[in-house]
Amino acid sequence: MPDVHYRFSPAFQAPTGSAIRELFKYLSLPGMISFAGGYPPPEFFDREGLRLAAERAFAEAPLDCLQYGATEGLPVLREQLAGLMLRRGASVCADDIVVTTGSQQGLDLLIRVLLEPGQSVLVERPTYPAALQALRMAGAQVLSAATDAEGLDTDALAAQLAALPRGQVRLLYCVPTFANPTGACLPLARRLQVLALAARHDLLIIEDDPYGALRFSGAEVPSLLALSREVEGSVGRVMHLASLSKVLAPGLRVGWMVAPAAVRQRCLIAKQTVDLCTSPWAQRIAAHYLASGALQQALPVLAAGYREKCQRMLAGLEPLESLLSVSPPAGGMFIWARCRAGIDAQTLFNAAVAENLVFVPGAPFHPDQPDPSSLRLSFAAPSLEQIDRGVERLRRAFERCGIVPN
Amino acid sequence: MPDVHYRFSPAFQAPTGSAIRELFKYLSLPGMISFAGGYPPPEFFDREGLRLAAERAFAEAPLDCLQYGATEGLPVLREQLAGLMLRRGASVCADDIVVTTGSQQGLDLLIRVLLEPGQSVLVERPTYPAALQALRMAGAQVLSAATDAEGLDTDALAAQLAALPRGQVRLLYCVPTFANPTGACLPLARRLQVLALAARHDLLIIEDDPYGALRFSGAEVPSLLALSREVEGSVGRVMHLASLSKVLAPGLRVGWMVAPAAVRQRCLIAKQTVDLCTSPWAQRIAAHYLASGALQQALPVLAAGYREKCQRMLAGLEPLESLLSVSPPAGGMFIWARCRAGIDAQTLFNAAVAENLVFVPGAPFHPDQPDPSSLRLSFAAPSLEQIDRGVERLRRAFERCGIVPN
Repeated sequence: MPDVHYRFSPAFQAPTGSAIRELFKYLSLPGMISFAGGYPPPEFFDREGLRLAAERAFAEAPLDCLQYGATEGLPVLREQLAGLMLRRGASVCADDIVVTTGSQQGLDLLIRVLLEPGQSVLVERPTYPAALQALRMAGAQVLSAATDAEGLDTDALAAQLAALPRGQVRLLYCVPTFANPTGACLPLARRLQVLALAARHDLLIIEDDPYGALRFSGAEVPSLLALSREVEGSVGRVMHLASLSKVLAPGLRVGWMVAPAAVRQRCLIAKQTVDLCTSPWAQRIAAHYLASGALQQALPVLAAGYREKCQRMLAGLEPLESLLSVSPPAGGMFIWARCRAGIDAQTLFNAAVAENLVFVPGAPFHPDQPDPSSLRLSFAAPSLEQIDRGVERLRRAFERCGIVPN
Repeated sequence: MPDVHYRFSPAFQAPTGSAIRELFKYLSLPGMISFAGGYPPPEFFDREGLRLAAERAFAEAPLDCLQYGATEGLPVLREQLAGLMLRRGASVCADDIVVTTGSQQGLDLLIRVLLEPGQSVLVERPTYPAALQALRMAGAQVLSAATDAEGLDTDALAAQLAALPRGQVRLLYCVPTFANPTGACLPLARRLQVLALAARHDLLIIEDDPYGALRFSGAEVPSLLALSREVEGSVGRVMHLASLSKVLAPGLRVGWMVAPAAVRQRCLIAKQTVDLCTSPWAQRIAAHYLASGALQQALPVLAAGYREKCQRMLAGLEPLESLLSVSPPAGGMFIWARCRAGIDAQTLFNAAVAENLVFVPGAPFHPDQPDPSSLRLSFAAPSLEQIDRGVERLRRAFERCGIVPN
């Protein structure tokens, strides 16, 4: 073994990886059912549509698939994504869009460009752990904003911002539509309030929106980006991140960012040093698929599929309601739950693993003030039959902890 | 327009993008011939082989193409890359390898993990501009090491390191094999000396090796990674970056890193926040292609093709030798040249653009002490016929500057 004493940058001296990725080791165990990751299920992939899109993209422009592409993304894809944003209510043109290697890269680029180490960033409590990890590795001071069943508690946020010295917080990261992990969808009035707060307190907002297209009940609520045109002083304050991972295929690693020119241009300079460009081959496959209109046809089917899975899980959990309080979502991939029974989610998790079930205990989602009773259950990846069996295993896990439903 | 005053992180307050990417605007002008980018030419892509690999990869495992993959990369690809490294003389197993989104991402991950802002990093003078850009954006203090026609001047490096306080420089970034921009290949004795210096001065080395497989004359020289087993105290000091971009297709965005476990594990944690994983679809296409043995068959053909192009350009430049001194490379994509005629490369560039030719003036390759007479000519992308016409245009560009060959 080498006798080298490695010295690492401050963030990497004793780094802890993703707690969710740590769960992966359980997934390969035989018979394990997973309520853990927010993965599209195999049966929801449009395999034939994507196979065709890939075949056509390559047949049409093999050299454009194989060569380097512009850092901002291929025009054919950016046009399609602008159309998609328009259908989602945001008036955006191709030039406003940067294609990213998954929306995770969009967040990384924004952090590089906007964040100074030591600076304060507000996030929802609880929030997406990889955002938390990215912010902390960049040296951010993470402050948490309270949420309730509808997402950000905007009155509390107003009070919190008013109490902080002006300029201390410059950035708010949030997942307003079908949040990870809570599934909450921020109501219109609160969205307008968030934008007004941004204008009043000179905040920029990173709106992370991977799940927004997966609504299965209730009425559409426009994105913060779309609404910023309606709230004075908030135009230019929303950086919007989106992705094809949850609606088409994570394996493409195609996401996008909508941001004001000054921010976008800097993100492009950062992207030159990060990966030069997102795979033009993957971009062309995505562009062909979108141009075929298949996504617009698939979305209602996908949403209906997730509705069915969500309802099946909620129905299964009903007999456990004395043990577990749940927040029924109107879209997305997650049900957020709390153990009522006085046991913590990690204890329940250990018992669940013994029953061949995994979920994600809530602690890693909390930037601070962790709620040890909380857990995230995803209905996305398991089949209906696995959902039934998994819920039964969850019941037995409670039993193992000495707890039975009333 | 929004009335938002954006505040950016220090590196992005007045960022300058890639000077090479700035040349792109000329490339779309009608009739322009480019000696600028290090792009594989259209005719060198194995279109049919890649089409087949893509078809088979998807047919065999569509779900693995479409779903998220492990952050370290797919085992099927890592096995193939380990075999490729073995053929290149480095005894490496699949577990030593992290798949990256192009080798550019490998550099970015290493910088995050290894570099503290303000720390000193040594690079060759001249060097790859995107490495320079990445290091500077990360807040590195970039120190330059002198090179000659054979690459790093290791005696000068020894003296430079001896004169610096021990521990001030922890990192050396270099492209020892067919360097960008000089095309130089560091001889064996110098490689051993670099490794000995690394051991003596407690340096880590980032060995960037995108071009190493494109040798078209002379004998193979092992990589620093391979040689580190032979130099006491240097094992574990070399982080090796490589890529399929120059030998197969940039559009895949598939590169890889070989690094010691402590570094690799931290790079994986960084990669979780950067893009989660490199496109599993692209990885499977690459794995299928490599498993078919097609790359091993293609490499000698590719090398012969680049040799022909390089010789054609050198032959064309011969009548200009009183104006331009050139360094003939033994592989890679670049010829480094210096104007003898007392004019600077930027003046020559402006004249060349008027003649419908672009190349890259040497200034952006220099971390300091820019040599205004230097320029980089790439023979990779233009056809033989374009090389002939481009060289003629270069002659006319000199004429425009009032200079004719003796």
